[in-house]
Amino acid sequence: MKAIKYLLSIVFTIFSSSSIFSFEAGGHVDPVPPILLGLVVLFSGASFGGFLANKLKQPVVLGELVVGVFLGNLVFLGYDGFDFIKTGEVFQILAGIGVILLLFEVGLESSLSEMIKVGFVASVVAIIGVVFPFFLGLGVSYFFMPEKSIYIHAFVGATLCATSVGITARVLKDLGKINIKEAKIILGAAVIDDVLGLIILAVVSGIISSISTGGAELTLTDIFLVFLKAVGFLVGALIIGTKISPSFFRFGAKLQLEGVLLSLSLIFCFVLSYLAHLVGLAPIVGAFAAGLMLDGVRFPKMYGDDRHLGALIFPVSKFFVPVFFVHMGMQVEVHSLLNLDVLAFGLCLSFVAILGKQACGLGILGKNTRGVSRALVGIGMIPRGEVGLIFAMIGAGLSLHGQSVVDEKLYSAIVMMVMITTMITPPFLIWALERKKV
Amino acid sequence: MKAIKYLLSIVFTIFSSSSIFSFEAGGHVDPVPPILLGLVVLFSGASFGGFLANKLKQPVVLGELVVGVFLGNLVFLGYDGFDFIKTGEVFQILAGIGVILLLFEVGLESSLSEMIKVGFVASVVAIIGVVFPFFLGLGVSYFFMPEKSIYIHAFVGATLCATSVGITARVLKDLGKINIKEAKIILGAAVIDDVLGLIILAVVSGIISSISTGGAELTLTDIFLVFLKAVGFLVGALIIGTKISPSFFRFGAKLQLEGVLLSLSLIFCFVLSYLAHLVGLAPIVGAFAAGLMLDGVRFPKMYGDDRHLGALIFPVSKFFVPVFFVHMGMQVEVHSLLNLDVLAFGLCLSFVAILGKQACGLGILGKNTRGVSRALVGIGMIPRGEVGLIFAMIGAGLSLHGQSVVDEKLYSAIVMMVMITTMITPPFLIWALERKKV
Repeated sequence: MKAIKYLLSIVFTIFSSSSIFSFEAGGHVDPVPPILLGLVVLFSGASFGGFLANKLKQPVVLGELVVGVFLGNLVFLGYDGFDFIKTGEVFQILAGIGVILLLFEVGLESSLSEMIKVGFVASVVAIIGVVFPFFLGLGVSYFFMPEKSIYIHAFVGATLCATSVGITARVLKDLGKINIKEAKIILGAAVIDDVLGLIILAVVSGIISSISTGGAELTLTDIFLVFLKAVGFLVGALIIGTKISPSFFRFGAKLQLEGVLLSLSLIFCFVLSYLAHLVGLAPIVGAFAAGLMLDGVRFPKMYGDDRHLGALIFPVSKFFVPVFFVHMGMQVEVHSLLNLDVLAFGLCLSFVAILGKQACGLGILGKNTRGVSRALVGIGMIPRGEVGLIFAMIGAGLSLHGQSVVDEKLYSAIVMMVMITTMITPPFLIWALERKKV
Repeated sequence: MKAIKYLLSIVFTIFSSSSIFSFEAGGHVDPVPPILLGLVVLFSGASFGGFLANKLKQPVVLGELVVGVFLGNLVFLGYDGFDFIKTGEVFQILAGIGVILLLFEVGLESSLSEMIKVGFVASVVAIIGVVFPFFLGLGVSYFFMPEKSIYIHAFVGATLCATSVGITARVLKDLGKINIKEAKIILGAAVIDDVLGLIILAVVSGIISSISTGGAELTLTDIFLVFLKAVGFLVGALIIGTKISPSFFRFGAKLQLEGVLLSLSLIFCFVLSYLAHLVGLAPIVGAFAAGLMLDGVRFPKMYGDDRHLGALIFPVSKFFVPVFFVHMGMQVEVHSLLNLDVLAFGLCLSFVAILGKQACGLGILGKNTRGVSRALVGIGMIPRGEVGLIFAMIGAGLSLHGQSVVDEKLYSAIVMMVMITTMITPPFLIWALERKKV
C-alpha cells in the first residue's frame, strides 16, 4: 500500500505543475444572491413605474425611467443601498442585452419590404438629422469653450449625430404604433444615422489621433473603408441573412428540441449584434437587422413551439428590457442640476440636439409621404441614448495637445444632453400622436 | 457675458467637489459584445448537445454537460478562446439564475399537498442520505490523509451530505416524470438534506473556527439557532407565502400592465431565493419553495396574459437554464485525470458519495410507498452539484493549525466527486426508469 502511495506521489509531483480545477471563478462568496436582490428592485421599480405611467396616461417606459431616477438618487434621503445596481457591471450587461432584445423585437414587428419603401425618405431625413445637429453642436461647443481646438468642437458635433432609437421604438411599440409610416421612417433613418455618425466619429477621432501622435495621417482610403465596412455589413446581412435564415431554421427544426426556435432566434440576433459591433456599428443595429430578416421567414412547425416567435421572445424581453430602462434612469445624477456651469452647457447642448433633429421633418418629401407627421418624425429622432454616451467615452479616452478631448465638464454636459433628450421624448411623442389624429 | 461666465465659474468651483455623473460604469469599452458571443457559444453548444442526446436517446441535460466539457477543454486542441466563458463572473451569475429558475419551474410543476403526503418518507430518506455519506466520506478522508485532524475529515464528510437536485429534476422534467412519487420523495428529501447539511456544516466549521481562533466556543444554542432559522424559513415561507401570494397577485392584476404576471412571479421567486440565502440555505431551496406556493394560486385573468404561468416562464428559463448546464460542464478540467493521486482520492470520494445515497432506498417504508423504486430514489439523490462546491469553497477559506482546511488536493478531489456524481446520474436515472417499467 505504501509503495503504491509513493508511486502515486511521484506521478502527482510530475503532473502538479498546473492548477487542476478551475472552479475558483466564484471565489469564496456566492455572487448570485446580491444580483437577485438587484433584479427584485429593478422589476419592482419597473412594475410600479409602469403602474404610475398608466394612471397618468403616459408611456410605461417613462414611468420606468422616472422610478429609475428616483432609485438612483435615494442618496439624497441618506440611502445608498442601491448603488451596486447603478455601478455593477452585471446590471450594465443585463441592461445591454435588454436594449438588444428590444430592437430585435421591433425588427420582428417591422417588415423589410416596407422599410425599403421608405428608404429614400429615411435617407434624406437621416442626412438632415446628422448635418444640422453636427454644426449646431460644434457652435455651442465653441461658445462654451472658445479656447479649445476646432477638432474638439467637431467631436462634440459628432456626439449629437446618432439617433438612439430605443426610447422611440418602445413608446411606439407600447402604444401599438410601430407599423405607422412615421415609425418606419424613424427606424430607417436611425440606422442610417448610426452609419453616418460612425463615419464622422471615425474621421474626427482619426484626425485628432494623427495630430496627437504625429503618426500616420488619416487617408481618404481609411474613411472609405470605415464606410464600406458599415454599409457592407448592413447590405450583406440583409441579403445573405434573408437567404440563409430559412435554411438555418429548417436545420433547427430537424434538431427536434423543445424551445429550439427560441434558442436559434437568440443565436441569430446575438451573432448579428456582435457582427455589427465588429464593423464599428452599435450592436442594436445588428439586432434590428436580425429582427427584420426573421420577419419574412416562414417557421416550420417545431416540436413544442406552435406559438409565434414574438410570443416566445416576449417573456425573455420582459425580463431584460425593463432592466435597461430603470437602470438608465438610475444613471441620472440629480445633484448635477446644482452645478450651474454644467447645467448651462448641458441645457444648450440639449436644446440644439432637439432643434437639430426637428429639421428632419423637412426631409419628408414626395407624394409617397402624404399625411406623414413631420413633427412626429422630428420628435422620434430626438433621443441620443447609449450611442452618444459611447462617443463621449471614446472622447474621454482620446487626447489632443496633452488634454483629454472630452474632459469632465464636457462629459457631464453630454450625459445631461442624453438624459434630457431621453426623458422629454415620450411625452412629446404622445402629444404629436394625438395632434396627428385631429 | 464675461461677468456671467465668471459668476458661473465661481458656482462651478463651489459645486465641483464631487463627480457629476456616474455613467462611467462601463469604462471605455462596451462590455456587452463579448457576452453576446459567449451566449452564442453556450446556446449553440446546448442546442447541439441536446440534438446529440436525442439521437442517442439520452436526456438533453447530459448532452449539454458533455458539450460543456468539450468546450471547456479545447485548450488541448490549442484553443483557449472560450476561457472567458469559463471564468467570467457574468456567466457564473447567468448560470446561477438558470438553476434558480429551473427549481422554480420544478416547484411550479409540483404540488405542496402531495409533497406533504410523502413528507415522512422523504425525511427518513434524507436522514439516511446524510448519515451514511457523512461517515463514509470521513473514512475516505482519513484513509487518504491520515496525518490530518479529525475535524477536517468531518468537514469532508459534510461536503458529501447535501443533495443537489438540479440534475435529477431536469432529467425527470425532460422525460415528463416530475410528478411520479419517486420525484416527490427525491425533491422533499433534497430540501431536508440541505437543512441537515447546513447544520452539519455549521457545527463542523464552528468547531474548527473556535479551535483555530481560540475564541468563543460553539454552544448548543448556536447550533439550535442555525437549525431554527432554516426550518423557520421553510415552514414560515410555506405557510405565510401560501396565504399572502393570492393577494399579492390580485394586487398585481390591478396594475393592468402587460407581462406583470411574469414580473411578479420572478420577484416572488427571487425574494424567496434571497431569503433562503440569508438564513444560510441554498438559494435554489427558496426558488423551489416559491414554485410550490404559486402552484396553488389561482391567477386572476390579467391584461395580455391569458397563458399559464409555466408557459410564460418557459422562454425565460430556456434562456438561462442551458447556460447553467453547459457552463457547469465547462468547469471540468479533463487534464486532472492525468494526476493519479487526485484521481484516486476523487474516485474513492465519488464511490462513497454514490454508495452512501444508495442506502436512501432503505428509508422507503410504509404502505404508502408500494411500487416505489428504491433504486430510482437512491440514484436521484446522487448529484452533489453546486452545494458541494460551496462547501469546498467555505473550507478553502477556513484554516486549522495554520493550514487551509480544504487544500488544493482535497479541493480537486471534491470537485471531481461533484463532476462524477453529476455526469453519471442521467444515464443511471434512465436505466432505473426503464427497469421500473418492466
